[in-house]
Amino acid sequence: MKRVEHTYRAAGVNLEAAEQVVKLIGQQAHSTFRPEVLSGIGQFAGLFKLSGYRQPVLVSSADGVGTKLRIAAILGKYDTVGIDLVNHCVNDILTCGAQPLFFLDYIAMGKLNPQRVEKLAVGLAAACREAGCALIGGETAEMPGIYSGEDFDLVGFIVGAVESDKLITGEGIRKGDPIIGLPSSGLHTNGYSLVRRVFGEEKTKLEAYSPELGRTLGEELLEPHRCYLNLLKPHLDRIKGLAHITGGGLPGNLPRILPQGLGVWLKRGSWEIPTIFQLIQKWGGVPEEEMFRVFNMGLGMILICSPEHCEDLLRILPGARLIGEVVKGEGIIWEHAG
Amino acid sequence: MKRVEHTYRAAGVNLEAAEQVVKLIGQQAHSTFRPEVLSGIGQFAGLFKLSGYRQPVLVSSADGVGTKLRIAAILGKYDTVGIDLVNHCVNDILTCGAQPLFFLDYIAMGKLNPQRVEKLAVGLAAACREAGCALIGGETAEMPGIYSGEDFDLVGFIVGAVESDKLITGEGIRKGDPIIGLPSSGLHTNGYSLVRRVFGEEKTKLEAYSPELGRTLGEELLEPHRCYLNLLKPHLDRIKGLAHITGGGLPGNLPRILPQGLGVWLKRGSWEIPTIFQLIQKWGGVPEEEMFRVFNMGLGMILICSPEHCEDLLRILPGARLIGEVVKGEGIIWEHAG
Repeated sequence: MKRVEHTYRAAGVNLEAAEQVVKLIGQQAHSTFRPEVLSGIGQFAGLFKLSGYRQPVLVSSADGVGTKLRIAAILGKYDTVGIDLVNHCVNDILTCGAQPLFFLDYIAMGKLNPQRVEKLAVGLAAACREAGCALIGGETAEMPGIYSGEDFDLVGFIVGAVESDKLITGEGIRKGDPIIGLPSSGLHTNGYSLVRRVFGEEKTKLEAYSPELGRTLGEELLEPHRCYLNLLKPHLDRIKGLAHITGGGLPGNLPRILPQGLGVWLKRGSWEIPTIFQLIQKWGGVPEEEMFRVFNMGLGMILICSPEHCEDLLRILPGARLIGEVVKGEGIIWEHAG
Repeated sequence: MKRVEHTYRAAGVNLEAAEQVVKLIGQQAHSTFRPEVLSGIGQFAGLFKLSGYRQPVLVSSADGVGTKLRIAAILGKYDTVGIDLVNHCVNDILTCGAQPLFFLDYIAMGKLNPQRVEKLAVGLAAACREAGCALIGGETAEMPGIYSGEDFDLVGFIVGAVESDKLITGEGIRKGDPIIGLPSSGLHTNGYSLVRRVFGEEKTKLEAYSPELGRTLGEELLEPHRCYLNLLKPHLDRIKGLAHITGGGLPGNLPRILPQGLGVWLKRGSWEIPTIFQLIQKWGGVPEEEMFRVFNMGLGMILICSPEHCEDLLRILPGARLIGEVVKGEGIIWEHAG
């Protein structure tokens, strides 16, 4: 009987490609380093020397990009989903008032493609630099049999810090506090399974120019998730609560930052719903309630402050809209604009 | 033309299942909490109050379980791969001398299955409790189209801390230092793509009793990754370097903790290679060199200390074997036992 030699490579795992990937990501990661990063040691882990905090609270979050990745794979555009991922994570910890310290990524593919991984890393590093966050580690996994074809997954993990007396908890929110919405840049990273169902996954359709959008549908759908850190950082002292509008939309994310016994009154029409959401609703025949449960509908971050700061914040923050106020009760009460 | 209403559920995303999952994981996570965890606040992030450190270095790692997940999926056994994941992460940061603080998970499935997610969380929480690590957050993603059938992915992120003057860096390693190997519990989490190629993926084969192994092949392959934290914690002061033997095996992981100009001399036959590795090699006709590059070959963690501590550590650490010593040069020199 002839014996077949089984090797890791024949089993679909290419250790040389893995080493190449480590180098390529390393180059990108280096561009994000801060003095606190202890590099060159810690071969199995990322090291970050924490200093300058009196009573640090570490704030962390894990996120994925969801099936926005499919759009990227279909269009062969891999340099923006890394931005999505980092910005999603940065926004999550910003809701507690935290500044980013460091970030780790996880990239999984059926067959490791070093050029593709490098493009993902370019996006990750660009967003990390923008947020002052060090990309200090990660894992790249080649998993034949779990991921097929062009499919891959991209996951991020962030750690930030905030002084314990500067934590934003939502506790101080009171009846009558104004609710301010900040514009999203598009779909951010939520609702893509529905979007793919509505528009389909044909490359030609994604690459066709849309007069309504003023660009191709694919460009619109891959618009990176907006980061609110640098915009809000100077004003965190005046903010009582922040809600990052992700999966679950306004109803799923806004009420949960409120103290018990309080709800929100929101005025439909107080902000403009961007064209892409109107197209999804129209083309897909998606019920309006469902639209609000799945998408951010044009508002990527919601902040709640005291009435005395409202006018100032509305003036300073570009595109900010007063969309409602805190009321007694529970959940969301919608007022439809006459 | 009839309009079809598209909803998120019809697109394969079930928000109710997602909410159920959040609850089920939350129950497990609670069992791991330490006093430093600030729970009930931080709806978008996990909060951990860091205290008791003079000059903390935060040590972090991201890992996956790789295609060991496939074996779990085929056998429908989901409660141990979470243990694999946590222990892999804990070992990674232990190599720097760090104690775990908190952990976040990422679980992705094509179709969210709350019972399955709960089992994954049971394993995660059990290993977190054992390591004194708080499971403070994570993300569960339903991604129809990217994961198919029973396939899923499970990723972990850990953060630990160590006083900066207690960091294990490998810097102090000198020529003549002994190299001690600690037994692995089996394959840990590496080499499963090759294993699946060698043994195939038939459930009946995985469930058949193997006289050589003294249990079924599936039981052997799902044996959880061993955690070395509690074993080594009391002795970290006497350890100069630690290498976690994961992907790349001894050649890929041991030399990289050495200072420049130093290599290792290892004596083949100084430890027993467990039966499972012998079976893989025999059944698969895998070249010996390849075996050592892919698998841990029975040694899951390697430690390097000063000669004066060697005897004591060999006596105290169960199953520890003196496998070689540090020499001038580079890489690994093998001595074959006569």
